[in-house]
Amino acid sequence: MTVRRLSVYTRCLQQLEEDGVKTVSSQELAERFNLNSAQVRKDLAYFGEFGVRGIGYYVVGLKAELQKILGLDHEWAVALVGFGNLGSALFHYKGFSRQGFRIAAIFETDPAKIGRDVGGAPVLSSADLAREVRARGIQIAIVAVPPEAAQTVIDQLADAGIKAILNFAPSRLRAPRDTRLKHVDLSIELETLSFYLAKSGR
Amino acid sequence: MTVRRLSVYTRCLQQLEEDGVKTVSSQELAERFNLNSAQVRKDLAYFGEFGVRGIGYYVVGLKAELQKILGLDHEWAVALVGFGNLGSALFHYKGFSRQGFRIAAIFETDPAKIGRDVGGAPVLSSADLAREVRARGIQIAIVAVPPEAAQTVIDQLADAGIKAILNFAPSRLRAPRDTRLKHVDLSIELETLSFYLAKSGR
Repeated sequence: MTVRRLSVYTRCLQQLEEDGVKTVSSQELAERFNLNSAQVRKDLAYFGEFGVRGIGYYVVGLKAELQKILGLDHEWAVALVGFGNLGSALFHYKGFSRQGFRIAAIFETDPAKIGRDVGGAPVLSSADLAREVRARGIQIAIVAVPPEAAQTVIDQLADAGIKAILNFAPSRLRAPRDTRLKHVDLSIELETLSFYLAKSGR
Repeated sequence: MTVRRLSVYTRCLQQLEEDGVKTVSSQELAERFNLNSAQVRKDLAYFGEFGVRGIGYYVVGLKAELQKILGLDHEWAVALVGFGNLGSALFHYKGFSRQGFRIAAIFETDPAKIGRDVGGAPVLSSADLAREVRARGIQIAIVAVPPEAAQTVIDQLADAGIKAILNFAPSRLRAPRDTRLKHVDLSIELETLSFYLAKSGR
């Protein structure tokens, strides 16, 4: 099962919980959220112990189990590297903190930004990255620097012991084998839409 | 086959082309880009005519075929709604234009921004959205407004005849049945990383 689908199910269950729904069958889940019902049934079969014959799954219990698997049962301290337009947008993105990702520090090279405090997070010098990452217990980093600076930043993060990096810079980058480097390619999302338009002949 | 995987293969083939590679087998493709080799073989079997026994696939030909399926064989005019930090970051994102998505107009409600010209794209009033969308042949919209404004914007876009919307606002939204509304949830990407860290016991 892809991790992405676990995340999607968690969000669906969250919505059901907000709507006061107590139990849900895989079929109902699929119909309500336009998911592939065979896939949902197969995926949720892994969580059989949370399902009850004839009733379905307990929304709260299944959600908690999925969150635990996704590592969302506790808070993660995250470093944000780069505080330009994208970095600033990501910092203010409500979705991160809702899932337990707390931006504990922002790193910059621009002296005009260093030393500021943004909504509780300090803007620190990239020169102090290794020391601050350790001092603040940071385990995940988000890279929002220009493409030409990204490889240097990723090297610095890996040297500082960071094992999980989410990169927004559209460039070809390398990380050590034991570091998980994930690229966000925003144009992939647009391609789902152009595929749909092309298919429907618009 | 999910559209997302088509996009991923297209990018891999693009890299191979840049590196001067002429042909590739599904196994080589899988190994080089850390993909599931059984999945790649199955997916590419759809494109059998581009494969040559004992040689593999012609990189350029297969890439062109995938791009055509994804609707990337021509340019799309895109509207960007909202020009705050996120809108600005998305406007300057290099990945969109590289795949043929051209931001033809930016829509705003802030009078201080309306009337400006940003790198060739005009900042227009949201009040003129329907007229401008038609006049400029816009078919896809990106929504980067605050969550509380998103539903109004999506209604306006649907009324203007837009059938494909990429939404960045983290809120629950509705669109007419014939409109494809895709949500980008940036925290899902972080969850892949927390899953990995939780699994490895860090």
